[in-house]
Amino acid sequence: MRRVSGAPVTLEGWYVLHEMYAVDWPGWNALGAAERDAIVAEATALLERQAARAGGESGCWTLLGHKGDLCLMHWRRDLEALRAEEVALARTRLRTFLVPTYSYLSVIELGTYELAGHAEARLEARGVRPDAAEREEEMRRMAAPRLFPKIPPRRYLCFYPMSKRRGEQVNWYDLPPAARAELMRGHGEIGRKYAGQVTQVIAGSVGLDDWEWGVTLFADDPLVFKKLVHEMRFDPASSRYALFGPFYVGIRFAAGALGEVLRTGVAGAD
Amino acid sequence: MRRVSGAPVTLEGWYVLHEMYAVDWPGWNALGAAERDAIVAEATALLERQAARAGGESGCWTLLGHKGDLCLMHWRRDLEALRAEEVALARTRLRTFLVPTYSYLSVIELGTYELAGHAEARLEARGVRPDAAEREEEMRRMAAPRLFPKIPPRRYLCFYPMSKRRGEQVNWYDLPPAARAELMRGHGEIGRKYAGQVTQVIAGSVGLDDWEWGVTLFADDPLVFKKLVHEMRFDPASSRYALFGPFYVGIRFAAGALGEVLRTGVAGAD
Amino acid sequence: MRRVSGAPVTLEGWYVLHEMYAVDWPGWNALGAAERDAIVAEATALLERQAARAGGESGCWTLLGHKGDLCLMHWRRDLEALRAEEVALARTRLRTFLVPTYSYLSVIELGTYELAGHAEARLEARGVRPDAAEREEEMRRMAAPRLFPKIPPRRYLCFYPMSKRRGEQVNWYDLPPAARAELMRGHGEIGRKYAGQVTQVIAGSVGLDDWEWGVTLFADDPLVFKKLVHEMRFDPASSRYALFGPFYVGIRFAAGALGEVLRTGVAGAD
Amino acid sequence: MRRVSGAPVTLEGWYVLHEMYAVDWPGWNALGAAERDAIVAEATALLERQAARAGGESGCWTLLGHKGDLCLMHWRRDLEALRAEEVALARTRLRTFLVPTYSYLSVIELGTYELAGHAEARLEARGVRPDAAEREEEMRRMAAPRLFPKIPPRRYLCFYPMSKRRGEQVNWYDLPPAARAELMRGHGEIGRKYAGQVTQVIAGSVGLDDWEWGVTLFADDPLVFKKLVHEMRFDPASSRYALFGPFYVGIRFAAGALGEVLRTGVAGAD
Amino acid sequence: MRRVSGAPVTLEGWYVLHEMYAVDWPGWNALGAAERDAIVAEATALLERQAARAGGESGCWTLLGHKGDLCLMHWRRDLEALRAEEVALARTRLRTFLVPTYSYLSVIELGTYELAGHAEARLEARGVRPDAAEREEEMRRMAAPRLFPKIPPRRYLCFYPMSKRRGEQVNWYDLPPAARAELMRGHGEIGRKYAGQVTQVIAGSVGLDDWEWGVTLFADDPLVFKKLVHEMRFDPASSRYALFGPFYVGIRFAAGALGEVLRTGVAGAD
Repeated sequence: MRRVSGAPVTLEGWYVLHEMYAVDWPGWNALGAAERDAIVAEATALLERQAARAGGESGCWTLLGHKGDLCLMHWRRDLEALRAEEVALARTRLRTFLVPTYSYLSVIELGTYELAGHAEARLEARGVRPDAAEREEEMRRMAAPRLFPKIPPRRYLCFYPMSKRRGEQVNWYDLPPAARAELMRGHGEIGRKYAGQVTQVIAGSVGLDDWEWGVTLFADDPLVFKKLVHEMRFDPASSRYALFGPFYVGIRFAAGALGEVLRTGVAGAD
Repeated sequence: MRRVSGAPVTLEGWYVLHEMYAVDWPGWNALGAAERDAIVAEATALLERQAARAGGESGCWTLLGHKGDLCLMHWRRDLEALRAEEVALARTRLRTFLVPTYSYLSVIELGTYELAGHAEARLEARGVRPDAAEREEEMRRMAAPRLFPKIPPRRYLCFYPMSKRRGEQVNWYDLPPAARAELMRGHGEIGRKYAGQVTQVIAGSVGLDDWEWGVTLFADDPLVFKKLVHEMRFDPASSRYALFGPFYVGIRFAAGALGEVLRTGVAGAD
Repeated sequence: MRRVSGAPVTLEGWYVLHEMYAVDWPGWNALGAAERDAIVAEATALLERQAARAGGESGCWTLLGHKGDLCLMHWRRDLEALRAEEVALARTRLRTFLVPTYSYLSVIELGTYELAGHAEARLEARGVRPDAAEREEEMRRMAAPRLFPKIPPRRYLCFYPMSKRRGEQVNWYDLPPAARAELMRGHGEIGRKYAGQVTQVIAGSVGLDDWEWGVTLFADDPLVFKKLVHEMRFDPASSRYALFGPFYVGIRFAAGALGEVLRTGVAGAD
Repeated sequence: MRRVSGAPVTLEGWYVLHEMYAVDWPGWNALGAAERDAIVAEATALLERQAARAGGESGCWTLLGHKGDLCLMHWRRDLEALRAEEVALARTRLRTFLVPTYSYLSVIELGTYELAGHAEARLEARGVRPDAAEREEEMRRMAAPRLFPKIPPRRYLCFYPMSKRRGEQVNWYDLPPAARAELMRGHGEIGRKYAGQVTQVIAGSVGLDDWEWGVTLFADDPLVFKKLVHEMRFDPASSRYALFGPFYVGIRFAAGALGEVLRTGVAGAD
Repeated sequence: MRRVSGAPVTLEGWYVLHEMYAVDWPGWNALGAAERDAIVAEATALLERQAARAGGESGCWTLLGHKGDLCLMHWRRDLEALRAEEVALARTRLRTFLVPTYSYLSVIELGTYELAGHAEARLEARGVRPDAAEREEEMRRMAAPRLFPKIPPRRYLCFYPMSKRRGEQVNWYDLPPAARAELMRGHGEIGRKYAGQVTQVIAGSVGLDDWEWGVTLFADDPLVFKKLVHEMRFDPASSRYALFGPFYVGIRFAAGALGEVLRTGVAGAD
């Protein structure tokens, strides 16, 4: 937990892999019904095993538009487990009819901009005058449910990668730590306003993938994605400093409903 | 209808999916006439059902150039309905000869920059001194025909996604609300000059797709697209603040004319 | 002909479609000679019909490099006629061996920066004190040969799309009209110096395709393309304000020489 | 070792080729088990020969996500040896099921910002007053293990290309040499903090490939990639001057474990 | 040789076409040895004819990495001859196994920044007081060997396209001619330092292809590419004003060694 050159300290949890696939509809349509059923059964069994793994979380979403038909998301303890899930699908017969269109590797993270103060307060409330190690330990205990969460049981997903701007005049990484903390605080306030409507999972990807973060939002009304991201765009932390990659919006479905999704595009989530 | 951090309030209507497809002409040409007829009949029946759905609007356009041959546009109440229409086409035999080249997900929106004043005026004309809730309710009533419109019966379509610039010096989202409202007013005036010649449908896509808006224009003379967008480009709201994605221009055709379009490229709209 | 917000008035002529295709040489080479001849005969007949259409102009060029092997360019009265020509080719057997690599939709335009003064002068020389409508009518008469020209009978073509820069400090659309007119005058002088060596056709594409103009140059010596564009690049209208898309350079061939082009790459133009 | 126009002097070692391949899973899955075994045996034998070459180093990693399934990295004395290894794989039957997705050509380099001082100190400690040639010779002796290293036996790899920014105001190459040296010193300090956890191999690629450097990191915990690159991003040498290309993260496997990797995605490193 | 608006005058020589191809290794490997031999024999014969043409120069290089396996470069008197060579290869059976990945069209050029002074000096040394026409004629005589050179017999090639920056503040084309000449002089000095180690061929492509120049370097040690381009990057003509496209590095081979290159990746140059 050394702090060097002003880099904020983060805590990390699940490693995350988002996988987007387009369905090869011409190929899929050309199959006979029995073959399609057998392929769906094999893939469904895998998706159900993945969703039920003890050491992680997995979910399925049906996407809109040409950027992909399916999003599979895995949360695991290490890269090996993520890679194993990716190749487990690659070895199914369904994979013959899936074209990878995007993926993103990241790890769930919590900034400690605010967490440190809360941890100290909690320890002091218990009559403890914490040293640095005790404060960090308390932070990790407090953070565990947010570092290793369950996938929120909401119907819609929105995923996008993003970075902070390093422009010639406007450069997030050159701001003094206090200015960054203040900007993040304002940003967090908007997020909290939507707390009941949307669950945000922030995963860091510096050194892992092409952007600095992967953001996954979960909501029961997709309009909330628009409202939240729109409102944040007027906040200086976003308006001046955020650069956005592609946006993916999906509708959750239960692993067991894969066949229905491949027939009609949508299905129930359980 | 809280206003936070200066983000303008918007009202939302139909969810919108634009789908662009290139025809695989070598594959299509290789079919026998009877097979082509059967495939056209199946797809035509679907396009006609989609156009006739009670809870939405759907239309077909034939596009020019390598960016696509067909544009299908759906307006629906929710993402599930959009996804179902997309997969319904994906399951047809025609889809074997269609290559998706682009798509765009958005939701029709109305900014309330001007609407609020009009609503108040209308209520006061009726002798009502409106409170906030009454004013919003009146705004929704007034806006309904523009949030859930019919597809205008014009021959040509122009679609393009766009965002507002967030440059290092020139940043739309950092302008004070009054400055943004003033710029949008000037912008709106140009639009109104063309009101008889072009119908504009603005759909927001922040949090839904890769740009901030999808703009769809409908006109009976495609030169109007050029005149309107050209004139707007000299208006500061565009000249300084607008970033444009790809432009798609199409010619409307009735679902029943799909076969003719695949034979000759064009057809009547009804 | 209202002038609003400083947008210059333009006159429009032919709609223009440039189509670039790469030849699938492996597929083409795999055919037997008789089949190739039959395919060439069918396509040649179409290209000849397109070149001979009363209501427009069409031409063929053989391109260099991986960006395409053939350029087909059509000038027509409306989008329907352009789309019909595109699909007429798509329905030939040759299209099985053509891969679309680029296309561009635009409409030939004349700026009226200078035309207005000339029209007035001509009318006054005839003793007429023109009103606005007469001046516009005279402008259209004068402009007709340049709005609906014939394809110049020169051997080489150079096509590129371009836009005017809308940077954060350097923004064409924010210049006062007089400054734009002055810059265009200097630009035009360079063009006139090359008048005997190159024919320029400027087509506007705001609202029609992804750049603001499509420029087509015709010359009997391809070095002239380099000399002209190079010299213009030092002119402020280009050096500061021009953004360029891809460049395509081709060698004209007569429709009847398609077979020779597919055998050897080049052929005579008539 | 002339120093001209402020360009820092570098010493060069192994030439480096990174090759990224996606597996064609549909094709691979369609093979019978015996055929797959034979293909794996042939490829494994090659990978083992490559890893055992006297004049170089070679290693294999399994990658996550759609950007590739396998990374092969070769370090050799010259371009001929690199090209020979690339084509040796291209001639195997496995290559039928590999799609190249990226590659990078570079040469391991050491800047002499600090090395020169160390060399002088060592020579003086031995009672030598070095001239320029002696100092350079000593530098090469000292640098040899870092110019021609072994691949570090760590489990994870992170590769990314990068350049220094040449912006309109912020331009690395216009800084005075002392300012660049000072920035690199601060940068190096962060690197040294992680010395026990990560091995960095910096390879120059100016004039060889599309970015200016290829950076390869090796660690036993992939979180270290994130921590290191994140911390460096707040250092001015990165925050202001670094531009990053795509990031690739992989898990090492021994050549002999290729079959296991193609079955399950992961395998042991020896 | 009019000088207008400060554009420097250039002399032009050979037209240049670089063609990059990736080998379809799966397809190639699937052939029987006899078929491969026949295909190699046909293609070798063509490459040898191209290399031996009276009116030009042609050469072959084997490339590293996914950007291509082969580079073919042709220098000819006109575009027709370049196009004919391109299609001659397209019509061979080898082309079935080649995928075009890049190409570049340009024309060898010499700036007259320095040439004019030298020509005058030479004429005066002969007692001639030259007028403009005599000076130009002398310049062309002096320049001929550099406008129509032979391909240097060096083992390695480096090719990259580049442009001069036209930024909002830093704009090459807005510099006064004397400042540009001074910058080019400094740039040229670095080039001359490497004269014994590298041969530079500069070809202009304004109006011909997507960048402003194509630069081809020839050397017997590929490290020289890195040293030269690296050193130039610190020179203001590059550090501030140069924008670079992709870099391609290849190893020369004689046309007769094509078969060996397709077996092992490398071969001798004669």
